[in-house]
Amino acid sequence: MGIVLGTNQYGKAENRIVRIYRDTPRHEIRDVNVSTALRGDFAPAYTHGDQSDVLPTDTQKHTAYAYAKEKGLLSIEDYGLALARHFVEDVEPVQGARVEIEEFAWERVVIDGVEHDHTWTRKGSEVRTASVTVEGTGDDQQVWITGGLKEMVILKSTGSEFTGFLTDPYTTLAPTNDRVMATSLTAKWRFTESTEIDWEATYAGIKQILVRHFAELHSLALQQTLHEMGRAVLEAYGFIAEIRFSAPNKHHFVYDLSPFGLDNPGEVFHADDRPYGLIQATVIRDDAPDAGPAWYAYTGLV
Amino acid sequence: MGIVLGTNQYGKAENRIVRIYRDTPRHEIRDVNVSTALRGDFAPAYTHGDQSDVLPTDTQKHTAYAYAKEKGLLSIEDYGLALARHFVEDVEPVQGARVEIEEFAWERVVIDGVEHDHTWTRKGSEVRTASVTVEGTGDDQQVWITGGLKEMVILKSTGSEFTGFLTDPYTTLAPTNDRVMATSLTAKWRFTESTEIDWEATYAGIKQILVRHFAELHSLALQQTLHEMGRAVLEAYGFIAEIRFSAPNKHHFVYDLSPFGLDNPGEVFHADDRPYGLIQATVIRDDAPDAGPAWYAYTGLV
Amino acid sequence: MGIVLGTNQYGKAENRIVRIYRDTPRHEIRDVNVSTALRGDFAPAYTHGDQSDVLPTDTQKHTAYAYAKEKGLLSIEDYGLALARHFVEDVEPVQGARVEIEEFAWERVVIDGVEHDHTWTRKGSEVRTASVTVEGTGDDQQVWITGGLKEMVILKSTGSEFTGFLTDPYTTLAPTNDRVMATSLTAKWRFTESTEIDWEATYAGIKQILVRHFAELHSLALQQTLHEMGRAVLEAYGFIAEIRFSAPNKHHFVYDLSPFGLDNPGEVFHADDRPYGLIQATVIRDDAPDAGPAWYAYTGLV
Amino acid sequence: MGIVLGTNQYGKAENRIVRIYRDTPRHEIRDVNVSTALRGDFAPAYTHGDQSDVLPTDTQKHTAYAYAKEKGLLSIEDYGLALARHFVEDVEPVQGARVEIEEFAWERVVIDGVEHDHTWTRKGSEVRTASVTVEGTGDDQQVWITGGLKEMVILKSTGSEFTGFLTDPYTTLAPTNDRVMATSLTAKWRFTESTEIDWEATYAGIKQILVRHFAELHSLALQQTLHEMGRAVLEAYGFIAEIRFSAPNKHHFVYDLSPFGLDNPGEVFHADDRPYGLIQATVIRDDAPDAGPAWYAYTGLV
Repeated sequence: MGIVLGTNQYGKAENRIVRIYRDTPRHEIRDVNVSTALRGDFAPAYTHGDQSDVLPTDTQKHTAYAYAKEKGLLSIEDYGLALARHFVEDVEPVQGARVEIEEFAWERVVIDGVEHDHTWTRKGSEVRTASVTVEGTGDDQQVWITGGLKEMVILKSTGSEFTGFLTDPYTTLAPTNDRVMATSLTAKWRFTESTEIDWEATYAGIKQILVRHFAELHSLALQQTLHEMGRAVLEAYGFIAEIRFSAPNKHHFVYDLSPFGLDNPGEVFHADDRPYGLIQATVIRDDAPDAGPAWYAYTGLV
Repeated sequence: MGIVLGTNQYGKAENRIVRIYRDTPRHEIRDVNVSTALRGDFAPAYTHGDQSDVLPTDTQKHTAYAYAKEKGLLSIEDYGLALARHFVEDVEPVQGARVEIEEFAWERVVIDGVEHDHTWTRKGSEVRTASVTVEGTGDDQQVWITGGLKEMVILKSTGSEFTGFLTDPYTTLAPTNDRVMATSLTAKWRFTESTEIDWEATYAGIKQILVRHFAELHSLALQQTLHEMGRAVLEAYGFIAEIRFSAPNKHHFVYDLSPFGLDNPGEVFHADDRPYGLIQATVIRDDAPDAGPAWYAYTGLV
Repeated sequence: MGIVLGTNQYGKAENRIVRIYRDTPRHEIRDVNVSTALRGDFAPAYTHGDQSDVLPTDTQKHTAYAYAKEKGLLSIEDYGLALARHFVEDVEPVQGARVEIEEFAWERVVIDGVEHDHTWTRKGSEVRTASVTVEGTGDDQQVWITGGLKEMVILKSTGSEFTGFLTDPYTTLAPTNDRVMATSLTAKWRFTESTEIDWEATYAGIKQILVRHFAELHSLALQQTLHEMGRAVLEAYGFIAEIRFSAPNKHHFVYDLSPFGLDNPGEVFHADDRPYGLIQATVIRDDAPDAGPAWYAYTGLV
Repeated sequence: MGIVLGTNQYGKAENRIVRIYRDTPRHEIRDVNVSTALRGDFAPAYTHGDQSDVLPTDTQKHTAYAYAKEKGLLSIEDYGLALARHFVEDVEPVQGARVEIEEFAWERVVIDGVEHDHTWTRKGSEVRTASVTVEGTGDDQQVWITGGLKEMVILKSTGSEFTGFLTDPYTTLAPTNDRVMATSLTAKWRFTESTEIDWEATYAGIKQILVRHFAELHSLALQQTLHEMGRAVLEAYGFIAEIRFSAPNKHHFVYDLSPFGLDNPGEVFHADDRPYGLIQATVIRDDAPDAGPAWYAYTGLV
């Protein structure tokens, strides 16, 4: 025919697992959304409906929940690595596995100045993310891990300008020396190691660097801010090969109050929904190892 | 015909206003979603398309933004009251006005232990709400104000049971002496005064009471917890006549790991989406003044 | 204390039931979202955590699914009525029941001009709604039923104007004699009978009347259009006491192309998200029977 | 430093353009969501905040709206091609442009059997999509076009089984010979030509093929169904090089009614939200030309 099966993967998406640690009266909570995908030679399932090499997505779901008990769920990178390795090592037809995780943060409620042992409110701020890709077994096994965050909404009310841009016949925008700059940041960073990393400290450290440079750089453009943030992360963490950003420019338009006899020197804004500027960029080491399948996503793909 | 116009209201919904205070280098931010509705005798607009008494929704929008400058936007209850009064007092055909506000919280980023002057991240936790209804002018003017919160997701990993319930032929549920209890709480409280109230302190105080009693009460049912929370709020604040709750029971089902030879003593849960239990209740003073139009909503109605 | 329990209800929200009729090779499908609420004297559950009169929400869920088999699910009004009656008549402490239903429409796929027996695509257009409220048993039983639709997005590209409106110092809007008028309509109608009604034909007939009058009336305002639509429904159906509308004015702004030397006589629009005008109105018979608890909602309340 | 700027693009996302054709009393409507991205050497904007080569996203927005007038908006592929070419050919620093479009379908309302001239309801069914990527100018110019659809929810109530699958210690799933199979299909197809194609007829034809094979194939797995659908599309359209699918398995679980003494032979289902199986696959010609940047997305990336 000349018509063939191309790239493919399958799995169970969005397993909403909550793991409580209750070995002491002070409980711990982990709240995650886990998606797993298997890769390999599954052509017979496509071409002839032959499932003999297909581990059901229902089984993948069970495994994801069971591993939260068997292996634990403290750092999402470690949990994802254990789960991805299991599929590749223990399930014969599986040649590669991809695990993607979102983690939702909770904070203990504080009563009379004391953190409560077993009650939390969901923070609702940024979502932490990770992906783990494993291919092969034994000495040939390769692993790619990314960490990240999304939906970190950050805003500065001054210290941002946008001037000196290219114009063409469709340009009406006026330059501005002082504006609100805001984004709902997505960032993903690629590790060059999968062991010996303190995942929790690294996440906290990267987030702090991103926030600091967003705040402190006098910004000539969102592009410049992103580059500065990325550069600083790579300078701080030698085991990070690259960082990718997707940053919608959440427009805050100065509301025109002049018809009503009112000044508006950057005080009253309309926060618009759509359309929005969208900047995407990678900051990378010039000697970064090949990314392999690290960025070949599962959910969100196509 | 015997067919007539019944209750009606119209306005501009979801004005996304951001107000920056920048009189000193340490800026302040307020981020709100404002909806306004006018009530009165607007029958000619319906029956004959006669707009002569209809203030455009576009004008209501302008006014909402302008008042963020003219009157300021520090407490949403005060801002809403000023805006609602304006429509009733200054626009001839308007007999009643309803203003509904959602407020999104931001927190200053902290760098080297110091709060930044003009950079924030959005908290993403609960949304604060308020409604103001004004009817009439001069000595006949009446005002109803409610405060509230929504989307406060709170969870306790023990200290909750559900036993001794009624059964019928459709009942299969097993009683449990230890479960996860979680909700995404909506609460609204009605004030009996509109002046002399410290809106910010009251909001913080009520939220703290809600959290405390959710955490501390050993719960025999979500109903009991809600009642305890409401009673405590009314005991603490004499100027609150009633509090209403809508509390989805966000089910966390213990995942059955027994087929895989694993115990699961309340450690691994599936957080389900739908369906969910939904409890709604009011806790009220037996001498509460009549609610009038306080609960006659605008957005969300019908 | 003088602090008491006020109005309350509880149940299971958003049971996502799909019912297939497969008695012949030509299957039928019904796809609904069912929420049930029970009302009565449940004070002991609130004040003392005493569940002895509380039928679990899990049981309500089972019943909703079982009734799709036992009673069938052809018209949502009939199904809802059977379910609500069951709770009131068969569960001792229940004094009132509220069932709210959303129905999602599917259409058969057509292959070579022939409708397929067992394959459908989801229409995705408006959602049909209904509510049933039952109070009491035997001769004292009362029933209130509403039908409705929501998310019917309808647009006309001419035949709509907005002029002659009231102005004040915050008004800048220019009158227009030709504009796009669009809404995402929510309508709910209250029946005065619960038997002998052809629910399916009535729904189709009302929808057709709404569409016809939206299209055919030269509109001087969305208010006028809503009134005309409502009046026509009441004239056509003697057993409908009132109809309620909530109609966001989905703004389509003429895009200013003049800076680029282009005319734009109502050809290119920006479809804006927020804010939006929002018109709410009831058209009612002057001799309509009392609405009782017909409009006392469950989901969406508070 | 060894830290450099990697891949990057920027533009204006989600321009919500509605285009009315009103040259005759029978109007036509096109309702689209357009995102544009520019690619080229924009490093100075990142490294030094130098905007001199940066065409503002505001300008891209203006251009998208203006082109709906200047070039028209009948087929989204043609419109996208004109817009992408403009950026590459007319804006000096731009080396590549990506335009992504979603189109929302409307259908004329029918009154007394006659289609109305200027009133429509939004269909709400599947969203049509397209992407156009242009690189270079003159004889060196290259163009890649994809078409597609998303959110086509399709269900068959029989004619689907799942048996003979691989099992491991985490497998509990029972095989089934008759189940509901449903998905919310995303499909994207890559054209090998950009001219001489009847975009509208091709879209309708592909959609019909997808629906037919979903319905008619007795399915041994969703994988098999997808492969069959893809193969048929490629057989029918010689100018399509490949088609990609992302197909969530929208689980419809047979509800267990046995505790209530009821049979349930595939009649009452719970439509679950999460987790869901997710199958992704490509069907491709073995001599397909290189995809180049055709699949390098803009919105949805990272």
